[in-house]
Amino acid sequence: LTTFANLPHVHCLAAEVTEMETYDIAILGAPFDTGVTARPGARFGPGGIRRGSRRISPESAWDIYTGENSFLDWAKIVDCGDAPLTFLDNTIALKQLDKAHKVISARKANSSEFSIPRIVTLGGDHTTTLSALRSAYKRWGQVSVIHFDSHIDTWDPKVLGGGISHYAGVNHGTFLHIAHEEGLIRNTSIHAGIRAPVIRRKGDVRNDIRCGFETIKARDIDRIGTYGVIDTLKKRVAGSKVYISVDIDVLDPAFAPATGTSEVGGWTTRELLTILDGLSGMEVIGADVVEVAPIYDNPGETTVLAAAEVVHSLLTLLVQRPVKM
Amino acid sequence: LTTFANLPHVHCLAAEVTEMETYDIAILGAPFDTGVTARPGARFGPGGIRRGSRRISPESAWDIYTGENSFLDWAKIVDCGDAPLTFLDNTIALKQLDKAHKVISARKANSSEFSIPRIVTLGGDHTTTLSALRSAYKRWGQVSVIHFDSHIDTWDPKVLGGGISHYAGVNHGTFLHIAHEEGLIRNTSIHAGIRAPVIRRKGDVRNDIRCGFETIKARDIDRIGTYGVIDTLKKRVAGSKVYISVDIDVLDPAFAPATGTSEVGGWTTRELLTILDGLSGMEVIGADVVEVAPIYDNPGETTVLAAAEVVHSLLTLLVQRPVKM
Amino acid sequence: LTTFANLPHVHCLAAEVTEMETYDIAILGAPFDTGVTARPGARFGPGGIRRGSRRISPESAWDIYTGENSFLDWAKIVDCGDAPLTFLDNTIALKQLDKAHKVISARKANSSEFSIPRIVTLGGDHTTTLSALRSAYKRWGQVSVIHFDSHIDTWDPKVLGGGISHYAGVNHGTFLHIAHEEGLIRNTSIHAGIRAPVIRRKGDVRNDIRCGFETIKARDIDRIGTYGVIDTLKKRVAGSKVYISVDIDVLDPAFAPATGTSEVGGWTTRELLTILDGLSGMEVIGADVVEVAPIYDNPGETTVLAAAEVVHSLLTLLVQRPVKM
Amino acid sequence: LTTFANLPHVHCLAAEVTEMETYDIAILGAPFDTGVTARPGARFGPGGIRRGSRRISPESAWDIYTGENSFLDWAKIVDCGDAPLTFLDNTIALKQLDKAHKVISARKANSSEFSIPRIVTLGGDHTTTLSALRSAYKRWGQVSVIHFDSHIDTWDPKVLGGGISHYAGVNHGTFLHIAHEEGLIRNTSIHAGIRAPVIRRKGDVRNDIRCGFETIKARDIDRIGTYGVIDTLKKRVAGSKVYISVDIDVLDPAFAPATGTSEVGGWTTRELLTILDGLSGMEVIGADVVEVAPIYDNPGETTVLAAAEVVHSLLTLLVQRPVKM
Amino acid sequence: LTTFANLPHVHCLAAEVTEMETYDIAILGAPFDTGVTARPGARFGPGGIRRGSRRISPESAWDIYTGENSFLDWAKIVDCGDAPLTFLDNTIALKQLDKAHKVISARKANSSEFSIPRIVTLGGDHTTTLSALRSAYKRWGQVSVIHFDSHIDTWDPKVLGGGISHYAGVNHGTFLHIAHEEGLIRNTSIHAGIRAPVIRRKGDVRNDIRCGFETIKARDIDRIGTYGVIDTLKKRVAGSKVYISVDIDVLDPAFAPATGTSEVGGWTTRELLTILDGLSGMEVIGADVVEVAPIYDNPGETTVLAAAEVVHSLLTLLVQRPVKM
Amino acid sequence: LTTFANLPHVHCLAAEVTEMETYDIAILGAPFDTGVTARPGARFGPGGIRRGSRRISPESAWDIYTGENSFLDWAKIVDCGDAPLTFLDNTIALKQLDKAHKVISARKANSSEFSIPRIVTLGGDHTTTLSALRSAYKRWGQVSVIHFDSHIDTWDPKVLGGGISHYAGVNHGTFLHIAHEEGLIRNTSIHAGIRAPVIRRKGDVRNDIRCGFETIKARDIDRIGTYGVIDTLKKRVAGSKVYISVDIDVLDPAFAPATGTSEVGGWTTRELLTILDGLSGMEVIGADVVEVAPIYDNPGETTVLAAAEVVHSLLTLLVQRPVKM
Ligand SMILES: [Mn+2]
Ligand SMILES: [Mn+2]
Ligand SMILES: [Mn+2]
Ligand SMILES: [Mn+2]
Ligand SMILES: [Mn+2]
Ligand SMILES: [Mn+2]
Ligand SMILES: [Mn+2]
Ligand SMILES: [Mn+2]
Ligand SMILES: [Mn+2]
Ligand SMILES: [Mn+2]
Ligand SMILES: [Mn+2]
Ligand SMILES: [Mn+2]
Repeated sequence: LTTFANLPHVHCLAAEVTEMETYDIAILGAPFDTGVTARPGARFGPGGIRRGSRRISPESAWDIYTGENSFLDWAKIVDCGDAPLTFLDNTIALKQLDKAHKVISARKANSSEFSIPRIVTLGGDHTTTLSALRSAYKRWGQVSVIHFDSHIDTWDPKVLGGGISHYAGVNHGTFLHIAHEEGLIRNTSIHAGIRAPVIRRKGDVRNDIRCGFETIKARDIDRIGTYGVIDTLKKRVAGSKVYISVDIDVLDPAFAPATGTSEVGGWTTRELLTILDGLSGMEVIGADVVEVAPIYDNPGETTVLAAAEVVHSLLTLLVQRPVKM
Repeated sequence: LTTFANLPHVHCLAAEVTEMETYDIAILGAPFDTGVTARPGARFGPGGIRRGSRRISPESAWDIYTGENSFLDWAKIVDCGDAPLTFLDNTIALKQLDKAHKVISARKANSSEFSIPRIVTLGGDHTTTLSALRSAYKRWGQVSVIHFDSHIDTWDPKVLGGGISHYAGVNHGTFLHIAHEEGLIRNTSIHAGIRAPVIRRKGDVRNDIRCGFETIKARDIDRIGTYGVIDTLKKRVAGSKVYISVDIDVLDPAFAPATGTSEVGGWTTRELLTILDGLSGMEVIGADVVEVAPIYDNPGETTVLAAAEVVHSLLTLLVQRPVKM
Repeated sequence: LTTFANLPHVHCLAAEVTEMETYDIAILGAPFDTGVTARPGARFGPGGIRRGSRRISPESAWDIYTGENSFLDWAKIVDCGDAPLTFLDNTIALKQLDKAHKVISARKANSSEFSIPRIVTLGGDHTTTLSALRSAYKRWGQVSVIHFDSHIDTWDPKVLGGGISHYAGVNHGTFLHIAHEEGLIRNTSIHAGIRAPVIRRKGDVRNDIRCGFETIKARDIDRIGTYGVIDTLKKRVAGSKVYISVDIDVLDPAFAPATGTSEVGGWTTRELLTILDGLSGMEVIGADVVEVAPIYDNPGETTVLAAAEVVHSLLTLLVQRPVKM
Repeated sequence: LTTFANLPHVHCLAAEVTEMETYDIAILGAPFDTGVTARPGARFGPGGIRRGSRRISPESAWDIYTGENSFLDWAKIVDCGDAPLTFLDNTIALKQLDKAHKVISARKANSSEFSIPRIVTLGGDHTTTLSALRSAYKRWGQVSVIHFDSHIDTWDPKVLGGGISHYAGVNHGTFLHIAHEEGLIRNTSIHAGIRAPVIRRKGDVRNDIRCGFETIKARDIDRIGTYGVIDTLKKRVAGSKVYISVDIDVLDPAFAPATGTSEVGGWTTRELLTILDGLSGMEVIGADVVEVAPIYDNPGETTVLAAAEVVHSLLTLLVQRPVKM
Repeated sequence: LTTFANLPHVHCLAAEVTEMETYDIAILGAPFDTGVTARPGARFGPGGIRRGSRRISPESAWDIYTGENSFLDWAKIVDCGDAPLTFLDNTIALKQLDKAHKVISARKANSSEFSIPRIVTLGGDHTTTLSALRSAYKRWGQVSVIHFDSHIDTWDPKVLGGGISHYAGVNHGTFLHIAHEEGLIRNTSIHAGIRAPVIRRKGDVRNDIRCGFETIKARDIDRIGTYGVIDTLKKRVAGSKVYISVDIDVLDPAFAPATGTSEVGGWTTRELLTILDGLSGMEVIGADVVEVAPIYDNPGETTVLAAAEVVHSLLTLLVQRPVKM
Repeated sequence: LTTFANLPHVHCLAAEVTEMETYDIAILGAPFDTGVTARPGARFGPGGIRRGSRRISPESAWDIYTGENSFLDWAKIVDCGDAPLTFLDNTIALKQLDKAHKVISARKANSSEFSIPRIVTLGGDHTTTLSALRSAYKRWGQVSVIHFDSHIDTWDPKVLGGGISHYAGVNHGTFLHIAHEEGLIRNTSIHAGIRAPVIRRKGDVRNDIRCGFETIKARDIDRIGTYGVIDTLKKRVAGSKVYISVDIDVLDPAFAPATGTSEVGGWTTRELLTILDGLSGMEVIGADVVEVAPIYDNPGETTVLAAAEVVHSLLTLLVQRPVKM
């Protein structure tokens, strides 16, 4: 049965725990897409990313660039399957996801030294990151967010979707605003790959800064290169714990067509992976890849192959730098 | 710009009305799909059905079977475009749709004789039929429902999706239960094409009867033929006004792959159209085609072509039998 | 290289002829689609049908129903490749096709007994049948046409496309009218599978009769069965030579999505093949399969597989009844 | 993680067995497709069928036709995942599959009464049935085979693929011949849905009879109906234990495009499911669905939805008639 | 109903004009593709580009790079829908398009200051640019053309398609030659992104220069960068009014697969948009995006998303520099 | 009928040879894919590449970058069609392919000066290169290999697929190891574009060097540019005859989705073609493009268009530098 990278499956949400079932890093699917404003379908993202990782084999995954194999290192990495989320009520679904994060991160780690398991979430739409940040906050305190996306996602709920109701205000374009309002994140966060337009002439950007974000735009890479991007990211979050969220729409639609809110003019997979690998050494306490909507993928599975490698790179960052509490 | 069957577009929801903009039958898109339990995508159904109707030309649509052209008959048929519905809050979206139905059906009809415009809705998921039934009830009183579907859609909200919250209980599998509870429909309704399993051994069927429904199963057609189906439907609703709702998943996935909750073993398009044409003479006061999710369609547009012809047949039923209030 | 059913390729249009290159039945591609009114793409039909026939192997094609292998019978069947047709001027393209038919049918037959090679054309849009009928007329005189199609294709050029110019009047919906006007066909022709609407209330049907056609509608098969269809066809053309033209849109879009002018409510492939096989014994002097537009096909190649088998059935009819001049 | 119909996953091939992990009916994937002669891809069949069964929920699968829920009956049904098979050596892969069958069927059954677990295999190409028949023979002795297929699959290895080597002779078109030669099956077997041509004029059919098979051709259903098919099947295998093998290409490509060796003119899903349900009461000791190659499927997942329902019907047959040793 | 970027629809071709229906910039669809030499389908380009622009919302389109919102600036931008063009006679279709351009550009502008509305055409194959250039010439005199394309499109009609007839000589590869012959364009024009081979060793390039063109080849960008391209373009057309024509095949097929005459080795969407935005300040008097053939698009709509953004960038250029007559 | 680039078809494997049928460069299809470890489908690669080359016309293929037309130069280039290979036994299939290479390269060349015809193979999976290298060795002695691929393909059969049997050890990931073991290649070979992980921490790389290979990794291009890649390749093979093998998976899946073992983070088509054209002047004695599996391609045929141009570039290298024996 298809787990991420053929990793062992563990019933992380089960009440009883056996010794065999401890882990250091947990992969968790978050099948949820009713917080989107454009094309739905990310509810099938976790399954899609797992299919895209089918050929990754933990025993034979020695990276050609780093010489490392993250799966055979100190950390035990497992796939927890999907959190059980309803498609029919966002409020409840997010509570279900909050709870899943809580239970999974509460288990004793496999490695005695580093006591809290970290989670890599497979989205699901970007709203699911809110649960991850709430969970991270409880375990690690405020974190900096490195946010790869073509959209800023700090929109004021009154501006994006909201106004009409509180319920509508919690969505994939406002979750970072809410995270800021809830005090979950530091004012040393940063976007990377932004290119979508904003809704208000000045208000959105002002609000974005207020939420704690700096911005690297998509075309900035043509000026500063991947190494410039890496440096900027490193400097911005220096000295703090980091959560990395990768909205797959940071990639150009040629590289990741299977997403709900595609924006052309984005980065290539080679650029994104180079940047991620360049973040080596950061204290990453959680990460996710979101907005993968497989029904829009090419027959050759272009997007889910890319998403799987992004997850792979994120896992490597987590392994390269264990984080103590 | 693509209207259904190249019909004229009228701003039916506008405050001011000009004489030019009256109509007898209004086509209304209902882009909504956050009430689904399986594959989303019906939010793009209205656009898809219109694309599928691209080649229908009102001036040259003389039917080879009936010898009639419904577009050149007594009724003025127009396309009102889509109701403006949020994707981010079902409760509000349904209120928006209720209001659209109310406004559109409140206009003075074009034909002086038959004073209330009738509406054919392009779904959207099946939850949208609830708004149509509420609107129908206000104009015409209780109606019988002829419900073409592979699913019964009378599930108790506590059984399907509900239990967890009232919000979750209003969905594409419970709307007929709710319509019954709200007193909108008669106990002379009938399902046609049912084949999906039920959730409770006996409870669902008992509840279904309580909601006023008889059932023609999909395989019944092999025994009684299309004419047997037509007779059964006619007898069931005899003497009452009728609302016809066609969930496109009544067709086999070979004929209508582009839907969210596909059930194999269904009817062919030829069977369905023969049955619909056989209902000629009924007092149909409203109708819809729902659950068309174009992203799942074949490159040849199999589903939307079928859906467009189903709409065409429904329009013909409305034209063949004008209904006085 | 892909020939129809892995048959030998012969340079039928070459000036010089070697003994090796004689044949009794020639397959000819007609890559042409600028006579269509809806979705283009039939210019790639010949290649598509050949791909659909890839698995047919002449040495091992013993039919399970008839016990015969048409490829190992008396007739030498070859694939002539495609006629060289321009996409940029219909008038010239049709002349090029007229000439190809003339040259190919003028060769000495391989079998000494039956002196004129017969041609099965792979369309191309239905306009290409006009060339085939002109060619047939020159060799065999007036013929009856059995026309499988969802459309009548006898539209008066003034009604369909024309009026604006003579050039526009020669198209895939008027070619049978033109064939009648040119005196190429008998008044004992017949349509089968018709279901598309007509443009004029009565004029089109009157004109159709004037062009020599009777009509079997698509839904008639539910009443008279495949054997009723076969009987009607046989009676209509009894005693005359026959040209069979199969517009692939006679099939329902579930069975043949890859065509330009899809009409739902059509026949299944099983029904069509049963009917074709039932025509055994007719004096078929030419045939074609047209309107296959592969870009609209399913990934599983549904349409081209069906089209290839239709060609196979037509070849069998030609082999079963050799025709003397 | 995606198991068939959300059934529990059991490590059936593990050396150690816990009480929790007994079962009465085991679902086993056989990812293998290097025995095919046309389009490959069935190696991904097991995953595809599981995806097609995603919406089947054991607790709420009360069948509308039978009133039963096979998942809540006496039998414990589990998904064993896939047998580990190499893609690089057919001889070894079949040995690996033989062993998987042996281990899985050797476990103590969950129900004390019926002591041998039965297996439903998800193919994989049809060669995989050979392993299933070997396994069945060891547990149950010679069985009758009901073989739904468009191809006879009893070809002599010398005729199909072989001649060139023994290795090449073991393939998806010869496995029934080999099963006969190995003495695994009774001379009371039967094909259903045959329509593909044979390779030799008379030899193949003679050999087929020698292998113990009678034949129902695809078009026979138009004459005898689904009930005629059911009767013929029942009579043929009366009094013997039965293995049912469903090559998904028995369905028409409109209903099951995602297969390697498509043959047009086949059965509809409604016909096939009616027939399968009509076999209720037989002593079925094993079954499979093979030749599902998901890459050729429609975006709407037409084929895998059909295949999943076929598996569901097969499970129902196994539950309806427990078989004692 | 789907207009470009949800802009208001105006009946620009109607005889009577109301005050409400004036505009400064008009978007016009040109559904035409019978002038192509390879894959057809651009007749559905206008609808495809509009679908690709679905998520652009005029009120909330503040560009992240420029800080501007072209839709909320001085200019009233509207969508005129499609010109009514026949698919059956190129000569007449081009006359119909000529007339549409004439009528649309003849209306009084909305802004009192800049009196002539400018048009952005959504193709349609590249032949449609000929009408636009004729229209531009009448209003603005001779213009320089900036021609983004992988093909030069200045072929002599005798060389490409012609020779056989005058009709065939007017096509998507010769229209720039014809525009030059008709005296519509200046000898200060320039191609950008060229990479397709030429037909004659030297003749085509010589003729191209004679037609007034300089050339930036696709791979030149690797040497001079996007800024080098921008400079070269600016210098070439300095001091003259400019028409910008974007053949979507200037993009690599990875970024724009949905086109008829794909050439690999092209530009990325990021490169193209950077270049277009760099042309800010030019006196652009008309523009188009052509050769979008949606049937060849990926499920994720890669091409039409890119094409919509290209149109958006072109609109911005028109808004940034109003042009007086 | 579809030959590569509309080149003449020659029966290169026929026993008798006519003068007309000599050639200098032969294109040969190798339909084989049972040596793959991931997604199959490359058996249809030769047909796919030919379809991708459909628009290349030898008489009008004057390259815009080089000013040359390789088809009108000294060399006669022909398409030999496909080698007849079984899908059912790899050992025999490779022998069949060995023989095809032997026969084709044994014919007298068309050009009197350069006596041995050279072959460009259209794969087929990468195992087919083994036959080409064996053939090359017999004609030209040991050669350097320039190997474009995301995978090293020098795996020890014991490590990849093997261990279980000798048969399994001959596959698309071990053929270069075997070629080295058989003494076919020089220790001056080089990989380009590598990015897939290795199976053993150090063993695979050590073995790779032992097999004679240096490595340019995919991301190296960001540091050294296309010209750096060209220089490195030229230096490595300086002074020796060269065989160039292009595994299409060297391209990023955005540019070549239609392959079996996709690896993200690869090169663009523009980069690859620039590099290939930069190898001008080498003594290339054979070449291939492999691992094209068309079923995974985009509707726009992205991959086969790229593969066809790669073949075109390889042909140009062969023409630019005739090689004497
Ligand atoms: Mn985003
Ligand atoms: Mn986001
Ligand atoms: Mn339903
Ligand atoms: Mn429903
Ligand atoms: Mn037709
Ligand atoms: Mn026709
Ligand atoms: Mn079969
Ligand atoms: Mn079989
Ligand atoms: Mn172009
Ligand atoms: Mn162009
Ligand atoms: Mn590779
Ligand atoms: Mn390789």
